[in-house]
Amino acid sequence: MYKETNLRSIVKGISWRFVATGTTVTIVYLFFGQLEMAIAAGLMETVLKVGLFWGHEKVWQRVRFGKKRIEPFNLWFTGLPLSGKTTIADKVYEKLRTLDIPLERIDSKDIRELIPDVGYTREERNRHMKRIGHLIQTLQKNSISTVASFVSPYRESRKAIRTMVKNNIVVYLKADIESCKKRDYKGVYEKAVCGELKNFTGISDVYEEPQHAEIVIDTDRTDPDEAAEMIFQYVKRKYVK
Amino acid sequence: MYKETNLRSIVKGISWRFVATGTTVTIVYLFFGQLEMAIAAGLMETVLKVGLFWGHEKVWQRVRFGKKRIEPFNLWFTGLPLSGKTTIADKVYEKLRTLDIPLERIDSKDIRELIPDVGYTREERNRHMKRIGHLIQTLQKNSISTVASFVSPYRESRKAIRTMVKNNIVVYLKADIESCKKRDYKGVYEKAVCGELKNFTGISDVYEEPQHAEIVIDTDRTDPDEAAEMIFQYVKRKYVK
Repeated sequence: MYKETNLRSIVKGISWRFVATGTTVTIVYLFFGQLEMAIAAGLMETVLKVGLFWGHEKVWQRVRFGKKRIEPFNLWFTGLPLSGKTTIADKVYEKLRTLDIPLERIDSKDIRELIPDVGYTREERNRHMKRIGHLIQTLQKNSISTVASFVSPYRESRKAIRTMVKNNIVVYLKADIESCKKRDYKGVYEKAVCGELKNFTGISDVYEEPQHAEIVIDTDRTDPDEAAEMIFQYVKRKYVK
Repeated sequence: MYKETNLRSIVKGISWRFVATGTTVTIVYLFFGQLEMAIAAGLMETVLKVGLFWGHEKVWQRVRFGKKRIEPFNLWFTGLPLSGKTTIADKVYEKLRTLDIPLERIDSKDIRELIPDVGYTREERNRHMKRIGHLIQTLQKNSISTVASFVSPYRESRKAIRTMVKNNIVVYLKADIESCKKRDYKGVYEKAVCGELKNFTGISDVYEEPQHAEIVIDTDRTDPDEAAEMIFQYVKRKYVK
């Protein structure tokens, strides 16, 4: 995926003028300028230049100069269940879409709904993460950036993702487990406490805090819109401009 | 992903001429044509038109007319182990790449090397296929076509793929099991016969022949280059032109 820079547009404009003006001047010279002659010349110019313009375009389509390659990135949201990953990731995704770059949103929920029996043991989670890594890799090969949100509680699987993908930006949404429980509109924490849900991160399974996150946001203190704006500005500054 | 049609290029050329000629004629008229005047007019035109050309480009960037959308497709190679899937799919992929469309190659082997413990039971294979379906779906959402090769021995999982993806083209590589055994440079059939490999398609597990394949090729009778050319022409005719 390529985006046209202003420099390219300007140079393209100048080069086109060399071709077009050369033709006009030659024709007006041959016709010994008069109003009618100028019009006649203009008409002839029209006929000739439709062809020239077309050729000029075709030549420029083959020239790479001034085309800027956009490097795909991966925004990786990690944090306890109900720490705000999906909410904030969705907001960041909407903001990034306005930049007109190829972008894909990947959420834990969507994939687990499609393939319900992924499992929640350490081994199953790690394998799941490896597959997500492969998905992101494949998208990046096609210049598509990603906004991914997964609890991803284990260091080894976050590390695996970092090894597999380019321009990885880990966003750790830090939230007190008590506030996550308060936000628990799905009732999952309750079920986990009762033992109805096994291997539930924060209750019956560990969450290993990231040590090298590019961005850390305390969602108990920062409101989702503010958080989304901060993340958006970071990505824009580093990978789009 | 959009590709520029010749019609768009021609109309763009004509519209540009209206702008450019209008300017030339107006200027030459004001200058009451003479050689020096024409040159002066040409020079002035140059200055003005660099700006106009640039504006014209910017306007056209916002206009959709004449842009052709390429519909993503999925070529799905199925058949017994060693029936020729990877070989022929690779050749078709190379041919399709010359068409300059966004394209991704997905091979069973690459994914199973990355995630070694996928498993070969009916349930595990079906789940695996669903994930591949999700991968293709995600790529198609981004206008990327796919060339996929998987034994995919069960009807239900091929059906799942067909339901999940757009423009699905099943290529069934029909080969006699005895010829597959002869081609067995990896020694997998031997291992399967000895019971070293479990759930091996064609030996210890069933291969359910596709009933609705778009293309069926007998790889005992058709050479790989010829097969690749046939498939390439089919895709080109139906989805690219």
